[in-house]
Amino acid sequence: MAAKPTPLSGFPELLPAQRAVEQHVVDTLRHVFELHGFAGIETRAVEPLEQLLRKGDTSKEVYLLRRLHETSTEGHAGLGLHFDLTVPFARYVLENAGKLEFPFRRYQVQKVWRGERPQEGRYREFTQADIDVVGRDELPFHHDVEVTRVMVDALTRLDFLPGFRVQVNNRKLIQGFYAGLGIEPGDSLDEVMRLVDKLDKIGADQVRALLVAEAGLGDDVAGRVLELAGIRATDDSFVAAVRALGVEHPLLDEGLDELAALVRGCADLVTDRVRVEADLAIARGLDYYTGTVFETRLDGYESLGSICSGGRYDALASDGRTTYPGVGISLGLSRVLVTLMARTGLTADRAVPSAVLVALADEGSRPASDAVATALRARGIPCEVAASAQRFGKQIRYAERRGIPFVWFPGDAPTEGHQVKDIRSGDQTAADPATWAPPPDDLRSRVVTPTTEEQHP
Amino acid sequence: MAAKPTPLSGFPELLPAQRAVEQHVVDTLRHVFELHGFAGIETRAVEPLEQLLRKGDTSKEVYLLRRLHETSTEGHAGLGLHFDLTVPFARYVLENAGKLEFPFRRYQVQKVWRGERPQEGRYREFTQADIDVVGRDELPFHHDVEVTRVMVDALTRLDFLPGFRVQVNNRKLIQGFYAGLGIEPGDSLDEVMRLVDKLDKIGADQVRALLVAEAGLGDDVAGRVLELAGIRATDDSFVAAVRALGVEHPLLDEGLDELAALVRGCADLVTDRVRVEADLAIARGLDYYTGTVFETRLDGYESLGSICSGGRYDALASDGRTTYPGVGISLGLSRVLVTLMARTGLTADRAVPSAVLVALADEGSRPASDAVATALRARGIPCEVAASAQRFGKQIRYAERRGIPFVWFPGDAPTEGHQVKDIRSGDQTAADPATWAPPPDDLRSRVVTPTTEEQHP
Repeated sequence: MAAKPTPLSGFPELLPAQRAVEQHVVDTLRHVFELHGFAGIETRAVEPLEQLLRKGDTSKEVYLLRRLHETSTEGHAGLGLHFDLTVPFARYVLENAGKLEFPFRRYQVQKVWRGERPQEGRYREFTQADIDVVGRDELPFHHDVEVTRVMVDALTRLDFLPGFRVQVNNRKLIQGFYAGLGIEPGDSLDEVMRLVDKLDKIGADQVRALLVAEAGLGDDVAGRVLELAGIRATDDSFVAAVRALGVEHPLLDEGLDELAALVRGCADLVTDRVRVEADLAIARGLDYYTGTVFETRLDGYESLGSICSGGRYDALASDGRTTYPGVGISLGLSRVLVTLMARTGLTADRAVPSAVLVALADEGSRPASDAVATALRARGIPCEVAASAQRFGKQIRYAERRGIPFVWFPGDAPTEGHQVKDIRSGDQTAADPATWAPPPDDLRSRVVTPTTEEQHP
Repeated sequence: MAAKPTPLSGFPELLPAQRAVEQHVVDTLRHVFELHGFAGIETRAVEPLEQLLRKGDTSKEVYLLRRLHETSTEGHAGLGLHFDLTVPFARYVLENAGKLEFPFRRYQVQKVWRGERPQEGRYREFTQADIDVVGRDELPFHHDVEVTRVMVDALTRLDFLPGFRVQVNNRKLIQGFYAGLGIEPGDSLDEVMRLVDKLDKIGADQVRALLVAEAGLGDDVAGRVLELAGIRATDDSFVAAVRALGVEHPLLDEGLDELAALVRGCADLVTDRVRVEADLAIARGLDYYTGTVFETRLDGYESLGSICSGGRYDALASDGRTTYPGVGISLGLSRVLVTLMARTGLTADRAVPSAVLVALADEGSRPASDAVATALRARGIPCEVAASAQRFGKQIRYAERRGIPFVWFPGDAPTEGHQVKDIRSGDQTAADPATWAPPPDDLRSRVVTPTTEEQHP
């Protein structure tokens, strides 16, 4: 390499202290998902192209693979990188159905790739964290409440996050309401949903005009469609608000019951920072959801759009004989973290795992310094020995630059004459390598947001 | 999806219990690497093609990317998937040199891709775990000892592994010896190393014939080259054995000193199961190592070749002005795990994280069962609530199929009438959701090898 390489747009990489934050987050998510009985899996990065193109509207974003010296008979042209974790999970469920127990709860934290134009919150390579519950033939509604609660629990524990709002809705409610208004299921209903989905971007007046002009709705019907989309509530009072619009349909009743159960089922998780609210404008565009739908907005980061989305699929996968219904949520980990890092300086308080730098008096005493490090590591304390026997002042500055909080000065004997210095306070005390430990908060790096205060992950 | 999908050759995927083993292994590696002060990083999956092709001999294995609807002006044809973690790490060091502190210790556990013909231990997508220490301008030799010790420490803690042998050598030793024999540095020296590297495959007689016929060595010189390659020792006695061959060269002296220091520096890690030995036949083929070289063989799995290899590069990276020497080792995680899973049935004792299944008397009492689960989770106990209110016998079999060791029968009051059953022993006792905990060994899944006995990760 003859010159300094430059970053590739859309492929964000983290510095070591930033990566420590990402690792803290992944550990927290995994801990919560496992507490709730979700098993971790990973799927291969590639899928056959015909699988990837089933969701027609994202096909343009797929990266295809070919081998450098590929011959035409090899057929690798048929593989592409996955652009989400749902398509590979559905394939995994079908492929391994005979070896899985249902309902199958799984989480999956992996990179995905999309050939999109990069911008804030949108990358060509990024990490998603998905949870899904999938059943065989049937999947009771209580799993919709379960996955919402699990993701809210996980997000709540990421205490460097600003407040957030989980917006929930139900496709049965929307479709039942539209059917009760006389809008035909199928293309015209999809068209109405697609137009209502633009509310955020173009506003109610524009949407109303399009509902009349493009979807052919009467003024009154268009008005009620917009009234429905305007309903929001942090409790089940939305049911009365919908009933007041005077539309009747069995599917609407089912959707109202489910959505009310979901909002009530999450009520105990709500705090000043964490809200779960029914928002009847949420429809998840053209995705194939059939009941519950979720989106999540981060306070102060509304321009990112939804950071955590999902819903219920009545047919996550099917092999023609058996159908596997599922409900799941996908968290855009890179979308949140890379944005927070850029905007707030979110990082960790040290660039290395080491809690202690063991100083080195001279190169000949490296075995003595190594012995101290070995004794500390035996009790789970991450540490490193100074790379060279510089003056102690330089070794302390070496620790400072890395954010290592303690410097250890080895004694002349295995247990005598040792000193340890907290380089933040300057306090230096006698210590025994066999028993000393740093305060628990100093054992691992901590998440810090320079623009706000220090936070523990 | 209309039919059951079939696996893609060379892209192994794990069932949930197998993935739990892989996760245990990654956690163990990461714990050890961090105890030694190595910072974790991840690099993007793609590199510019010109970076990937610098190591000429693997270029045929690279997967290239292109977007499905790519236009010719976009230039994506210049990106490929990384085939190891060294090329991206070298690029990362150069790109971020101003923001890193040197010596920089990093570990990296990621998937890599090679378009090779799949066979046991060789896949098209696989996970590697790398550690490297990289310096700016210089990197003292003690880091060679450090990385060896760290990887031996990590492998030793994977106690489901059979015994293994870390074979170490030193390129200075080989090159100094060859130079002392009059073999010219450059092409002829490389040719001799390349032929000696075939010893394992074609035997000493064939190699001797090739050394004479292809490399143009005299019979005596070829004989001494083979004598050197025949030297092995588990201590520094190899120094006397090399001296006895009567070859003299300053570079040979340097190599002997370094290799002896490495073997002595690892002596305290050696056990019946773990050996570190000087093996003067190890040369690491055409890789660009300049000093220490490592390979690792797993007892009983010699056909896999080396599972963990690496060495010293005097120029891991260079931007023309500054050179970054490095020393590192790469563990072929998938190579080991996928092979052990196939050959020995290595897996985990449960397919879910749950230690407890909370039974459900009837659908109406789901809130009571959820409350028990919440109480257990608050104290870090992974659990799940039964999916449906089947007969208790069926709920116990549901737990059995997943390998969940305990079934909880909720009482009529928050703290009264609760019972927990160990379904392996059948023992059932009264328990309080606020205080009961499973034995520590049952909290997480355990690694088991059906063909041998149960082991703890």
